[in-house]
Amino acid sequence: MCGIVGYIGKEQAAPILLEGLSRLEYRGYDSAGMAVYDQDRDTLSVHKAKGRLKVLADQLQNGAAVKGTVGIGHTRWATHGAPSDVNSHPQVSQSGKIAVVHNGIIENYGELKSFLMGKGVSFLSDTDTEVVAQLIEYFYQGDLLKAVGQVLHRIQGAYALGILCADYPDQIIAVRKDSPLILGYGDGCNFLASDVTAIIKHTRRVGYMEDGELAVLTREGIQCYDRLLEPVDKEISYVDWEIDAAEKGGYEHFMFKEIMEQPQALRRAILPRIREGEVCFEDFGLSQDYVRAMSKVYIVACGSSYHVGMVGKYVLERLTRRPVEVALASEFRYMDPIVDGSTLVVVISQSGETLDTMAALREAKRLGAKVLSIVNVVGSSIARESDEVLYTWAGPEIAVATTKGYSTQLAVLDLLALWFARVLGTVAPEEYHTILDEMTRLPDKMERVLAERDSIQYFASHWFNHNSIFFMGRNLDYALGLEGSLKLKEISYIHSEAYASGELKHGTISLVEEGTLVVALGTYDRLFEKAMSNVVEVKARGADVLALTTESHSGEMEKTADGVMTIPDTHELLLPSLGVVPLQLFAYYVALMRGCDIDKPRNLAKSVTVE
Amino acid sequence: MCGIVGYIGKEQAAPILLEGLSRLEYRGYDSAGMAVYDQDRDTLSVHKAKGRLKVLADQLQNGAAVKGTVGIGHTRWATHGAPSDVNSHPQVSQSGKIAVVHNGIIENYGELKSFLMGKGVSFLSDTDTEVVAQLIEYFYQGDLLKAVGQVLHRIQGAYALGILCADYPDQIIAVRKDSPLILGYGDGCNFLASDVTAIIKHTRRVGYMEDGELAVLTREGIQCYDRLLEPVDKEISYVDWEIDAAEKGGYEHFMFKEIMEQPQALRRAILPRIREGEVCFEDFGLSQDYVRAMSKVYIVACGSSYHVGMVGKYVLERLTRRPVEVALASEFRYMDPIVDGSTLVVVISQSGETLDTMAALREAKRLGAKVLSIVNVVGSSIARESDEVLYTWAGPEIAVATTKGYSTQLAVLDLLALWFARVLGTVAPEEYHTILDEMTRLPDKMERVLAERDSIQYFASHWFNHNSIFFMGRNLDYALGLEGSLKLKEISYIHSEAYASGELKHGTISLVEEGTLVVALGTYDRLFEKAMSNVVEVKARGADVLALTTESHSGEMEKTADGVMTIPDTHELLLPSLGVVPLQLFAYYVALMRGCDIDKPRNLAKSVTVE
Repeated sequence: MCGIVGYIGKEQAAPILLEGLSRLEYRGYDSAGMAVYDQDRDTLSVHKAKGRLKVLADQLQNGAAVKGTVGIGHTRWATHGAPSDVNSHPQVSQSGKIAVVHNGIIENYGELKSFLMGKGVSFLSDTDTEVVAQLIEYFYQGDLLKAVGQVLHRIQGAYALGILCADYPDQIIAVRKDSPLILGYGDGCNFLASDVTAIIKHTRRVGYMEDGELAVLTREGIQCYDRLLEPVDKEISYVDWEIDAAEKGGYEHFMFKEIMEQPQALRRAILPRIREGEVCFEDFGLSQDYVRAMSKVYIVACGSSYHVGMVGKYVLERLTRRPVEVALASEFRYMDPIVDGSTLVVVISQSGETLDTMAALREAKRLGAKVLSIVNVVGSSIARESDEVLYTWAGPEIAVATTKGYSTQLAVLDLLALWFARVLGTVAPEEYHTILDEMTRLPDKMERVLAERDSIQYFASHWFNHNSIFFMGRNLDYALGLEGSLKLKEISYIHSEAYASGELKHGTISLVEEGTLVVALGTYDRLFEKAMSNVVEVKARGADVLALTTESHSGEMEKTADGVMTIPDTHELLLPSLGVVPLQLFAYYVALMRGCDIDKPRNLAKSVTVE
Repeated sequence: MCGIVGYIGKEQAAPILLEGLSRLEYRGYDSAGMAVYDQDRDTLSVHKAKGRLKVLADQLQNGAAVKGTVGIGHTRWATHGAPSDVNSHPQVSQSGKIAVVHNGIIENYGELKSFLMGKGVSFLSDTDTEVVAQLIEYFYQGDLLKAVGQVLHRIQGAYALGILCADYPDQIIAVRKDSPLILGYGDGCNFLASDVTAIIKHTRRVGYMEDGELAVLTREGIQCYDRLLEPVDKEISYVDWEIDAAEKGGYEHFMFKEIMEQPQALRRAILPRIREGEVCFEDFGLSQDYVRAMSKVYIVACGSSYHVGMVGKYVLERLTRRPVEVALASEFRYMDPIVDGSTLVVVISQSGETLDTMAALREAKRLGAKVLSIVNVVGSSIARESDEVLYTWAGPEIAVATTKGYSTQLAVLDLLALWFARVLGTVAPEEYHTILDEMTRLPDKMERVLAERDSIQYFASHWFNHNSIFFMGRNLDYALGLEGSLKLKEISYIHSEAYASGELKHGTISLVEEGTLVVALGTYDRLFEKAMSNVVEVKARGADVLALTTESHSGEMEKTADGVMTIPDTHELLLPSLGVVPLQLFAYYVALMRGCDIDKPRNLAKSVTVE
């Protein structure tokens, strides 16, 4: 999604802004820009360019060409109006006096734009953001803060705003509602950013803005205000992330690095939570009584996290015999879900900032449910608003397509299911210990899968040229197929789709013709014979079949399938944790061979902070 | 799926078999064949051909070339072994003495084949069916019935079998397990068929074989036996279907005829069930006490019927505030679902013979749930095994892609939801009556939609050449999109996929490029603004947008979308009943322009009676 960075201090602002924006590139964007106050001319100098940040940086000689020590910068991911120079941020008011950078969506921008046009204001862009800049100017009568306050009462939607005004060369105004914004405290300088990585090079002392808050940044300090513009004190946190942890570590792409990091990430997520043969969560407030009274679990998430939830439903229902419903966050928030005080809502989000998931969390709380979140980014909005948090400890994930995020979320959900089952007495002690033992072995087994990556690369070289690919599987393999298909789709732009194998005959099989690639998932021992039947069936219609199965079944599968990806045997409920790896690798190698921009796929953003 | 027909009498068998098979063509097949006893040569004469039935009929001069008065015929839909002459049925034993036609799958055929090969038996085909013929011959020592009995103890899977033996020229043996088979009682002749339409021209007196039954047909009569080969009496039913009802009624395709029939089908499904302003089901055994004690509803179905369930979840949860889970039948049967005596399982199937749905029904009953089925074909297996049945009264549906089946299932489910809500007191009387009133108006409103079909044909002419199409919508529009996408996919072979709009940004939008067609569903008033935002978003990435909305929103939608399909306003819960029609028409016209075989799409069967 869009990224914001702001600086006020004594150094030249433009190079700092460019450097900060470059740290946000991984979030996905299509254009970039900045506004800096130029003291010599007493105006804002605004520079914008469609495309990669490098285009802008080249225009500005890496910032050296832009004078001034206060400014705001932005990387844009288009929501209203196509990617273009004019639609990039900052958006400025008609006089050029007020510049605004914005993450989120102003929902009533159409109505406000008509109002302003009726007043004679003319617009240059198609963006909702320009409306904010123009509206501030419309209300502005010499008191910037007052004008901003008036605007906030009139705009609806989600937004993080950075505002610069030529009349106020010694301040930046920041506003947050439903879109993350962070304040950075420096020495004689202060910062604003949508993500801590943008400013971590300059300061590790940060403040998290709350919803509805407004902040005024000067060189000397930062003053925050609540919705009523009453001053509030802000707690300062210390960030201990290493920026090096977000580098590619010698690999060609972040995605590949993160795939390879998975065994280590799993160790971090699993091992500290198993003590003396029992699942053990620290700082965890769900009581055993609560769990016993829990009538239902609702898992709410988007994208890959939703696919984790799909696997989780099988695992949780099997181990706990409590009904589990999995919902897309974007649907949950508007579906009037049946949720009450005895429902546990589990929300899953890597970034902890996914807007739909955040809104679903709030809806769940409004309905009286307890909310447990599974989140990677510590201190993120979702983590802060949940009743309980289990962190995945995967470290920063930079590639847009999640890999270690998925694996660690799944491991944490498995641990949660085991803990519930232990409390409820719905799992035999023997099976409980077997699964826990197998979980501790997952990282090593995953390393064995990664060691076989050359064979996956070979399969990718064989089939990368297809434009339509189907994944099929049953039960846990179906849930896994959803993730395998999404991975392929998001980075290779191949239209792939995952099916429950039994559904193929109800429509999709009409698309299977000579040479169609079907990725057949058959890791789940209990249904292996059924999986083989489906392989035979699509082969009979001329399909090529690339299968995924376990070591104990690979011999049989090789008799029929055109290619077989193999994973070690493990407890059946843990198979997706190993099975996802060959699918990630397949998607990666296919995208590589197709020459795609793997870490930053077209149109996609790392963290979806708009609807 | 495959079709079986058998005849024993005094007339020449082959023309009767060919005519019967032609009545089964709509079920989908890839090859056909027959075996007839030739008295002059005292052998079975077997004729088979890959492709349309016409190929076989031409070879046999419409049957005139084949002597004999007893025979079995088959249309095959490949499951084991590709479509070919040699894999077609009947399959014969090594000596040529025993011929078998078979619907279903023999699961342990591999093991049995190895056993027979070890005994020196050689095989010609790749089919599971040949194993049955060879195994009968292996056990045969002069007593055919005894040999068949021995075989039945050894084969596993689902099957309907017709068996002819040269040593028994005056009988046909029929066997049924998990695959439908019907006996027809004639005058001096008797029949066997997988579907009543195959024999209705000759007799309307039929007997439905039960699971595990075996029948011996002679010219004089039919004797049935149970699993232990004890004789059983068979009840004879009278079929009052008119064969003309299954003709195309002047239209080019059954599918179009059935689309146009929907208003009338809805009248039949809805009007008799509303009396004096109340929902009223006749012959219905669910008590009000049962409904009050019902803790959960599980809807289980496949394909389009599953999509009816997806709409039904929204409707039922909204009106009854009881949790509703929708499951694919093929998944439900193997997922160890959480179902007990207070769970109502609603199974939905047009044919009433869908094998996965049937298996799910049995699993639900095993777990102690009550099963209510929504079925079109009266007397079908699912109808007979359910605790309660609500028929859709849609009349015979011949086109493989369901249209009036979907609409009538949805109407019946809506009525059921209203009745539940009335019993539970979870709907305000005013809303209850408003919805009921609107239901009675649906047929007329649907006629208005059908009258505008030329505009849909125009849109189809504009976009029929795309090879990748996305449907998006939220809430009820999402559920509707699933059906719209399936319709397009199954008859036009375009890879289309439906999304909950909020999920686009989590992957699929990377596939959207200049000219990609997105079908945007925005009928649901409450989320219309969100739908518009998503339209703007995909437009910003270059997509063409064909939208579906209501008359009250079409003006606004036309400002942005490239094409708008409009339906009349109605109660929000009923919108999918109208919205599905333009999507059916769009799929139909697209397939027409692409020159596809609309009524019998590649690889698909009307009724899926194998796994």
